[in-house]
Amino acid sequence: MADNIPKINDLQHIAIVGPGLLGGSIALGLKSAGLTARITGIGHRQASIDTALRIGAIDAGSLDLAATADAQLLIIATPIGLFQPTLQRLANIIGPSAVVTDVGSTKRRVCQLAAKYLPNKNLFVGSHPMAGSEKRGVEFARADLCHNATCILTPTRSTSRDALALVESVWSALGMRLVHLTPDRHDRILAKISHLPHVLASALVNLCTDSELEVSGPGFLDTTRVASGDVNLWHDIIDSNADHLLAATAALRKQLDRLDAAVRSGRSAQIRQFLDAAKQKRDRLVQFKLQTHRFEP
Amino acid sequence: MADNIPKINDLQHIAIVGPGLLGGSIALGLKSAGLTARITGIGHRQASIDTALRIGAIDAGSLDLAATADAQLLIIATPIGLFQPTLQRLANIIGPSAVVTDVGSTKRRVCQLAAKYLPNKNLFVGSHPMAGSEKRGVEFARADLCHNATCILTPTRSTSRDALALVESVWSALGMRLVHLTPDRHDRILAKISHLPHVLASALVNLCTDSELEVSGPGFLDTTRVASGDVNLWHDIIDSNADHLLAATAALRKQLDRLDAAVRSGRSAQIRQFLDAAKQKRDRLVQFKLQTHRFEP
Repeated sequence: MADNIPKINDLQHIAIVGPGLLGGSIALGLKSAGLTARITGIGHRQASIDTALRIGAIDAGSLDLAATADAQLLIIATPIGLFQPTLQRLANIIGPSAVVTDVGSTKRRVCQLAAKYLPNKNLFVGSHPMAGSEKRGVEFARADLCHNATCILTPTRSTSRDALALVESVWSALGMRLVHLTPDRHDRILAKISHLPHVLASALVNLCTDSELEVSGPGFLDTTRVASGDVNLWHDIIDSNADHLLAATAALRKQLDRLDAAVRSGRSAQIRQFLDAAKQKRDRLVQFKLQTHRFEP
Repeated sequence: MADNIPKINDLQHIAIVGPGLLGGSIALGLKSAGLTARITGIGHRQASIDTALRIGAIDAGSLDLAATADAQLLIIATPIGLFQPTLQRLANIIGPSAVVTDVGSTKRRVCQLAAKYLPNKNLFVGSHPMAGSEKRGVEFARADLCHNATCILTPTRSTSRDALALVESVWSALGMRLVHLTPDRHDRILAKISHLPHVLASALVNLCTDSELEVSGPGFLDTTRVASGDVNLWHDIIDSNADHLLAATAALRKQLDRLDAAVRSGRSAQIRQFLDAAKQKRDRLVQFKLQTHRFEP
């Protein structure tokens, strides 16, 4: 395939659509990794663009997607709910060899929209850099936000190998660990390890009164940290992964059924088994993270 | 009441039964606060006693509860499952004016056992210092473990005011924030803010395979941190608070029912409402903790 796709060090113009916490951190990280490509940020609010310029994340800013016209690589970092209008409009702006990736937390909908709207769907590579925080806004951007985190890519059989190689080298430059999954498998796993935990954290907070919460210790704040995340962002995630999230809440109910039965009948061995299986598995996970990510979990 | 209860600075002998992570940290904290009382640690394993002596948490150690004979204050820090035999035996050892407190994570069972076995039940003050970690053992003890944490006390109408004052001054010396609750209200609230979150963390880990877990990000490790806690300790907590835990899992199911219904029918406003109520409430909690505990949650 003669896709005319540059290598990472030959990139001259990168566009980041939606330079918020994650988009801004990616921009800062690429500059800190030595990339000399010009980075344009396209946002909805002039204040965010100004902040992104001030902290040196972007070289130019615009409120108009037209500013992406000659970008060789576009990183779409808008909320999932804005993907449809964004991709629809980009289709008439970007060049025929522009590579497009995203940072969305669900992947089926994004990949479908890209296939539907983009002129060359083989140059779209779905990405999910699993980095962020419950904070929001480019003012919290950090060059090392992605460092040592996992980035899931969801190429399909028709994805251009050169486009995939370019996107992989961008995430690798930020120090991320790369994993390939299909969009469906990504969404199924993320429902369990991210979307269900978020919903449970919200449910835990919702079922307590303020005065009950005031008694809580640091463990509760850890457990519910994600519940302080941005409401619209999480609405879009849930909305675009409804089927897998419902399967995950059903699986959680089964776990609770097991535990409730053991507690109700005072079966100590089964209570211990429930707790021990989780402890063993989480301890294995901590070991794995220590080995592969070199951080203290 | 002429209980002959000393003030904190007149204490000459404190006994800590079960000097593990929390018991050892309390001992280190009291020494660091300037208390000159001799501290005796009574444990099950000589190795733990040796470690507690080596790190300077205790001045003397023993495997025999008889070493508590002339202690003016006893702090029982054994697992909940050992309270019954411990209190039963202490009844024949301790003096008539010895004040007894504990650090157990549930309070109804402990208070009942103390009332049943101790010679002077008015000198027992139930305590729950909400400090700890998923680690276990006196080797992880730290003088500041309790600093800025909440300590719940569960005095009853018959509790000696002097005994309560002594126990309060001990927890205050460690820099804890004091809250009074009845044993039943303590157990009901803790089921929601501690025992249910623990059970959910275990359930979340249990419903994933190892390879699914490996994809998880730092948020998942935060959410499930408590699931690496000690299995026997948590078995005892669940076992001694079964009724309130079952009420809490039922309340959680109701929250999930609400969310599932909104997700299934794609009612965005209700999904946002669910997430927003939790975010607002958690953000208020963070503000409260910042104001009252002076730490960064």
